[in-house]
Amino acid sequence: MVDGNPWRRLAERHRGVEFVDACLRGAAQVMLQNNPLTGLLILIGIAAGAIHSGHPRVIVGVLVALVLGTLTAILLRADGRSVRAGLFGFSPLLTGAGVTTFLGNRPLTWVFLVIGAVATTVVTLALTTVVNSWGIPGLTFPFVLTTWFLLLGAYQFARATLAVPAAPALPVAGAPDPARLGGETGLDVLAGVSQVFLVDSWVAGLIILLGLIVNSRWSALFAAGGAVAGTLLAIGFGAGADAVGQGLWGFNAVLTAIALGAVLYRPSGPTAIYALIGVVVTVVVQAASTTVLAPLGVPTLTAPFVIATWLFLLPKRNFAPVPQHERHVDGLFAALRPDGGRTG
Amino acid sequence: MVDGNPWRRLAERHRGVEFVDACLRGAAQVMLQNNPLTGLLILIGIAAGAIHSGHPRVIVGVLVALVLGTLTAILLRADGRSVRAGLFGFSPLLTGAGVTTFLGNRPLTWVFLVIGAVATTVVTLALTTVVNSWGIPGLTFPFVLTTWFLLLGAYQFARATLAVPAAPALPVAGAPDPARLGGETGLDVLAGVSQVFLVDSWVAGLIILLGLIVNSRWSALFAAGGAVAGTLLAIGFGAGADAVGQGLWGFNAVLTAIALGAVLYRPSGPTAIYALIGVVVTVVVQAASTTVLAPLGVPTLTAPFVIATWLFLLPKRNFAPVPQHERHVDGLFAALRPDGGRTG
Amino acid sequence: MVDGNPWRRLAERHRGVEFVDACLRGAAQVMLQNNPLTGLLILIGIAAGAIHSGHPRVIVGVLVALVLGTLTAILLRADGRSVRAGLFGFSPLLTGAGVTTFLGNRPLTWVFLVIGAVATTVVTLALTTVVNSWGIPGLTFPFVLTTWFLLLGAYQFARATLAVPAAPALPVAGAPDPARLGGETGLDVLAGVSQVFLVDSWVAGLIILLGLIVNSRWSALFAAGGAVAGTLLAIGFGAGADAVGQGLWGFNAVLTAIALGAVLYRPSGPTAIYALIGVVVTVVVQAASTTVLAPLGVPTLTAPFVIATWLFLLPKRNFAPVPQHERHVDGLFAALRPDGGRTG
Repeated sequence: MVDGNPWRRLAERHRGVEFVDACLRGAAQVMLQNNPLTGLLILIGIAAGAIHSGHPRVIVGVLVALVLGTLTAILLRADGRSVRAGLFGFSPLLTGAGVTTFLGNRPLTWVFLVIGAVATTVVTLALTTVVNSWGIPGLTFPFVLTTWFLLLGAYQFARATLAVPAAPALPVAGAPDPARLGGETGLDVLAGVSQVFLVDSWVAGLIILLGLIVNSRWSALFAAGGAVAGTLLAIGFGAGADAVGQGLWGFNAVLTAIALGAVLYRPSGPTAIYALIGVVVTVVVQAASTTVLAPLGVPTLTAPFVIATWLFLLPKRNFAPVPQHERHVDGLFAALRPDGGRTG
Repeated sequence: MVDGNPWRRLAERHRGVEFVDACLRGAAQVMLQNNPLTGLLILIGIAAGAIHSGHPRVIVGVLVALVLGTLTAILLRADGRSVRAGLFGFSPLLTGAGVTTFLGNRPLTWVFLVIGAVATTVVTLALTTVVNSWGIPGLTFPFVLTTWFLLLGAYQFARATLAVPAAPALPVAGAPDPARLGGETGLDVLAGVSQVFLVDSWVAGLIILLGLIVNSRWSALFAAGGAVAGTLLAIGFGAGADAVGQGLWGFNAVLTAIALGAVLYRPSGPTAIYALIGVVVTVVVQAASTTVLAPLGVPTLTAPFVIATWLFLLPKRNFAPVPQHERHVDGLFAALRPDGGRTG
Repeated sequence: MVDGNPWRRLAERHRGVEFVDACLRGAAQVMLQNNPLTGLLILIGIAAGAIHSGHPRVIVGVLVALVLGTLTAILLRADGRSVRAGLFGFSPLLTGAGVTTFLGNRPLTWVFLVIGAVATTVVTLALTTVVNSWGIPGLTFPFVLTTWFLLLGAYQFARATLAVPAAPALPVAGAPDPARLGGETGLDVLAGVSQVFLVDSWVAGLIILLGLIVNSRWSALFAAGGAVAGTLLAIGFGAGADAVGQGLWGFNAVLTAIALGAVLYRPSGPTAIYALIGVVVTVVVQAASTTVLAPLGVPTLTAPFVIATWLFLLPKRNFAPVPQHERHVDGLFAALRPDGGRTG
């Protein structure tokens, strides 16, 4: 058992194992989990999905950025407990996925990967100062900001090649070919889970869900529920069939559902309703972000999840929206730390 | 008399009347007033304007969102005094006007109306946490943000029809047909007052001004002055005749003038000068916002008022711009509460 | 000697001299220096560069805005020590350069110059309230925000003529004619220093560097190093030859290098590495900003410097990135004040 006491004791004694442990937890923290086995399964899921969808380069990007980002945090003497909980690994990991997915295979891409991994950790430290003053966590916003900078910046350089989903264009009203509910919808939902890591693969989605189950069944349940709800809402509103088929309406909803429903508020009936409203808002914000970014030709990444979840976390401080089942504000960060999670 | 003591005693005894009272105050709070009679006259003005300008649907949108937004605040256990003062009604009311004005008459529009009303209240609670840390009120920004999300999001859905004033286009320098001072300018100024509620109708403008007079003559004076100044500045700078004729250069200036000149600072000579500079900046920010939003095809709504007013309120905390006639910083919120207004 | 004790004693006795001293320090504060002689040399550099590059109007814009902005701060009773240190002069000065560089010679331009100078000071006061809560300075952001508002606003008015570098257009991937390292690169680097003031002139760059040397050799060294690094990185990434030749990849890097390497952290080996990473991020952010602003047809101004420097300053508060050579957080502002600088 990777996550049992023997592994933990090993990690406490050997600095090398401790670092591997921090990196595995970093992979798990993308899904707001603090468990090295979950992280391992997620990395296996990403690898399977990257090969399945024909982008094996993404595996290198993810691993290099995860290691470099965590190392940068150690060099900058960031809070040790946070480093060990993987809180400086998850955003760089995603930046690594973003750079290797959306930039072509040229030397400058690998330079951008290194810049991106280091910068994501600096941005994580910077953002923490800002959002701490309102009692909320930074979530994956350091990844979003850094990756936007790198992709938008790549437009200006002859040595970079962009592989973005759509070239810059003014937004046009209405989806060209609206999606319909059908036999494929189940697979679209699973792809929605894997798209958290920018991978379009129902196989990866299954493995990642398994990774959630070993740490927190509530998180797995809300992840699956979020993917279903996000995809169904998009189909109901008349979103385009292509995006639905790639699971693109699922991944932000997955993250919002886990964050609001299972991790940052205590699971309960009212919490589930609050999380569902959060998922509805996530879908609207994702559609809006797609429109805003159309003239710039870059993807929304996980910005819709971050924006919607911030909006549904911020009321906690001065008001009591879901009082009987919310943790104390100070617990917000504890929930993302080793001793605050379900497994240590 | 609706606003006399009998009404107040009735509202204190019956929960239904108390709720109606909170909704009426919500309508008044769009203009930063805390008076149910003002709210009633404003609702009559909106209704008259909606019929006068051929958009009767807006009446339904305004009433449904006002009620739903206030109810959501109660369900989320928001601060009771703020709810009773209408502070959770005014932004949803405007979201209701925005959705029914800028989305076509299809089933999804009414779904968006419900989502928008609920979301506006969540955004109000969230924004309060952020702006409280700087000692300023959120103003109508929850309406602006939520309505932008809904309109921008609608582009991605086949079941939504946009009725925005202009399709997405790159900005072009220079107005095609600059406005001139003329016999119509007086009516344009009154339409500027009604455009606070997205209605283009001088009749509505007159009724709304009447609603201001019954609560605060200073507010009515600054509202009229703001509309005149905004419209004249736009004409002087060479703004397009169409927008001037629809009162679109008046409504943000109206709100800035009321906020800076009559409500959030104490009325006086220096305050009037400070508010006038605020109105000049509002007109520049409105022009800039129009340019920024041109490629996205959505209107500025009241964002220029919010941005300009925030810029002219924030200095209060650390400096003393207009010291002899400003209220204490802690009074900012009191001014927007039942016992801080001129009538209770 | 302008900066010796006699000048200081004169400034303390005569209010007129004190005001001139504050304005000269305002010119120096653009480069984060607090020295009237540096300010005088910078003004001479701007004048030489404005004539050298054929834009003599800029001299008037710079002087009028510097004086008006400082006067506005005095009228609004801003903190006296900050006014005397020139902290209310540097952003208006840049707004003056921006308005007279990017708007054509028409009456409305001069109206916008006055509005811009006054508004920049209000924005400085407002921004200070916000960024103070995170322990960082506002840098030149008030100039950036105000000038963006004025230029973007000018699109909507028939009485304004825009002289922006490029008309609104959707971003296109890849530079049309990438720059190469060559005999001109040295002059491009010096132009990079003068572009801090929106002036393209290696003569001006030389004079401005001289102004830095008389106050702080570290600042001069990091300014030159920043210009070299920014320009070389842009050439290495494959940026367009035109922009490199105008020094446009130097000026943001110059400011980041001075801020992070010489003024806001204590100069040392690790600080130099940290500042170099900051310069790399500045170049990426500048490229990204260029892409984002392409559809709006306005220049990035010094926004990339502000964003990158904020990101590298914010970690200071909760973490200890470069602990052994950073000043205490409270020293951040002192460093920008009369008694915190190297000369008083």
